[in-house]
Amino acid sequence: MHITRRERFNAAHRLFRPDWDDEKNLEVFGKCSNPNWHGHNYTLFVTVKGRIDPETGFVINLKHLSHIIKTYIIDKLDHKNLNLEVDFMRNKIVSTENIAVAIWNELDQPVKEIGGKLHCVKLVETENNYVEFFGN
Amino acid sequence: MHITRRERFNAAHRLFRPDWDDEKNLEVFGKCSNPNWHGHNYTLFVTVKGRIDPETGFVINLKHLSHIIKTYIIDKLDHKNLNLEVDFMRNKIVSTENIAVAIWNELDQPVKEIGGKLHCVKLVETENNYVEFFGN
Amino acid sequence: MHITRRERFNAAHRLFRPDWDDEKNLEVFGKCSNPNWHGHNYTLFVTVKGRIDPETGFVINLKHLSHIIKTYIIDKLDHKNLNLEVDFMRNKIVSTENIAVAIWNELDQPVKEIGGKLHCVKLVETENNYVEFFGN
Amino acid sequence: MHITRRERFNAAHRLFRPDWDDEKNLEVFGKCSNPNWHGHNYTLFVTVKGRIDPETGFVINLKHLSHIIKTYIIDKLDHKNLNLEVDFMRNKIVSTENIAVAIWNELDQPVKEIGGKLHCVKLVETENNYVEFFGN
Amino acid sequence: MHITRRERFNAAHRLFRPDWDDEKNLEVFGKCSNPNWHGHNYTLFVTVKGRIDPETGFVINLKHLSHIIKTYIIDKLDHKNLNLEVDFMRNKIVSTENIAVAIWNELDQPVKEIGGKLHCVKLVETENNYVEFFGN
Amino acid sequence: MHITRRERFNAAHRLFRPDWDDEKNLEVFGKCSNPNWHGHNYTLFVTVKGRIDPETGFVINLKHLSHIIKTYIIDKLDHKNLNLEVDFMRNKIVSTENIAVAIWNELDQPVKEIGGKLHCVKLVETENNYVEFFGN
Repeated sequence: MHITRRERFNAAHRLFRPDWDDEKNLEVFGKCSNPNWHGHNYTLFVTVKGRIDPETGFVINLKHLSHIIKTYIIDKLDHKNLNLEVDFMRNKIVSTENIAVAIWNELDQPVKEIGGKLHCVKLVETENNYVEFFGN
Repeated sequence: MHITRRERFNAAHRLFRPDWDDEKNLEVFGKCSNPNWHGHNYTLFVTVKGRIDPETGFVINLKHLSHIIKTYIIDKLDHKNLNLEVDFMRNKIVSTENIAVAIWNELDQPVKEIGGKLHCVKLVETENNYVEFFGN
Repeated sequence: MHITRRERFNAAHRLFRPDWDDEKNLEVFGKCSNPNWHGHNYTLFVTVKGRIDPETGFVINLKHLSHIIKTYIIDKLDHKNLNLEVDFMRNKIVSTENIAVAIWNELDQPVKEIGGKLHCVKLVETENNYVEFFGN
Repeated sequence: MHITRRERFNAAHRLFRPDWDDEKNLEVFGKCSNPNWHGHNYTLFVTVKGRIDPETGFVINLKHLSHIIKTYIIDKLDHKNLNLEVDFMRNKIVSTENIAVAIWNELDQPVKEIGGKLHCVKLVETENNYVEFFGN
Repeated sequence: MHITRRERFNAAHRLFRPDWDDEKNLEVFGKCSNPNWHGHNYTLFVTVKGRIDPETGFVINLKHLSHIIKTYIIDKLDHKNLNLEVDFMRNKIVSTENIAVAIWNELDQPVKEIGGKLHCVKLVETENNYVEFFGN
Repeated sequence: MHITRRERFNAAHRLFRPDWDDEKNLEVFGKCSNPNWHGHNYTLFVTVKGRIDPETGFVINLKHLSHIIKTYIIDKLDHKNLNLEVDFMRNKIVSTENIAVAIWNELDQPVKEIGGKLHCVKLVETENNYVEFFGN
């Protein structure tokens, strides 16, 4: 049984490598490398795997899952600059892929502590693009 | 090849255990334990697995699948009280997880009879919450 | 300039007149008259009309509007039985139309107090049905 | 007859007044005043009013309308910082309201030149918030 | 009070004038003039205006409205070729605008007969394009 | 890590076997067998599997993936008749299943050439029906 909670955050970012000049960054990352930033409404789907607890009928209490996602992820990313203000994205390329992996790493342990097992972190950047990470 | 049919039903329910008092039910199930019920527009996605029949180009005829879902599930759940009026939910906690498992059990055999194999029952309770059941 | 805030609530209800018998209620209201209730995920769009305040660039501060909608509407309707538990729906037929009018009446004055003018209450009951009320 | 074209842009922005200190900006604009910016996937609906041309069955050729919106708006806003990089937002508070008015002003004349009359600029900032501007 | 019902139909069509050659049709209508047809999932929103009947709480019974739309529109357009098979589109350019006007003309009288007044026919051709007709 | 790109195409088609008469085609394929065609807005989700390239933070450059999908699929299917005008659908029943398999076969090699591995082709025909193909 999989159970999924959706949360959202709105943030600024840019794609670039500081060891590349602007021209090279533009060539690889296109308009996403804009030095003045751009931004997105990100939609995050966190899927947890588990068995149904016969006492509650729940795999996991979604209020607890939502609380964890808000504490570890949304409070740190929402209305923030993902390149400058997020401890767990420091010195990383802020691609959707890398954000999804970092979110997995932040959530893996807390989800265990409420009795679940993280199955998938899906991060939707636009209506046309999304990534899914299933762990290492 | 997976093929999926979406159907919808609108129903009332509450989450509670009759062997717990109201306070304990409120503590575990929150506002979902409201004794006067609340309700949802449920969206159901039924995914069937199979090979393409070269004669028809179909894994399964979706009209047949839709007919089965309507007969075995929608007619029994739509505009109903899930705690009081659904034979296959009797004496169960009416969590999204338990409804999904029950729907699987109702559909498994009929789907076989039209030549398919049930792969997933996905039940969406709100835009923020859904569960997926892949069988026992 | 119109500005719109979306909020959501999940509730149980039934359509019926106590002065009609079950047969007559069924004839007029169909399966919506189920005596054991059914329910919906309602989506509410509240539209306020006004001029842009040059100091803030806002017609109205959406945080204030959201706070008002939550206080006067969502807290009273969410995870509730609309027939039994909502003071401003007492002795009314709980149709989408009547809920929308009642929401208008509850919000009209508070919206004025934060400097706006209510323009439209749109209430979506299912993906196929919604009503819009523009005031008396 | 109204005809509407949807386009999208992803951009960074912040809400603030340079003549207010950070504390005052935070008080009025909340987390939207973050000095390091945040961002959104904006969805823009441009509605044009007119009569059907009996020769083509069109009120307006949507390819022409889309071309105008892309040239005058999307190319200037997409993957940009709305505070720093958009000529027609200079020295304005970058609220959704003010962006919508500015888009109206940019599109009004070009829409006339292809035979239409601008009726509404609707700008959706998040799934919960949008504004509509109908002209001065 | 406005009340809206959504219905859907899937159909083939092409935009062209028989008195123009292929080149001219291609120039004006672009790829929509493909002589071998193309098609869409059309979404139709029919809005009716009226006062709430105090006996039922309804502006109009949505089951009746849905029945009318299905009888007069969906049964004639769904899984059809809009150019070849629809009596009320004969000898017309099958633009979204013209379809919307024709739907209005078909629905106007039947809606009156169930006690409503047609307010708007909204026809969505793609997620990026739609028209709204408010009557003559 | 999975990464997904959404693209869309609008097309006409019909379901039928030329070796069956109209009656038999109608019996098996229902209104989808209409000899005058019908059509859909198809939504295509292409999912590619891979590891994150540490140099770019990308599994695959989505611009390249989008370019491939447009070149090999959208340009050939959009505003076309899927039965008559698509080389890779010739002599096939144009079911959603068969289109999805054909799209997989067209994309498999080009996706390899940009360093990815095709994981899933999901093709959505209507809001109620979709198929997913995961390869042979």
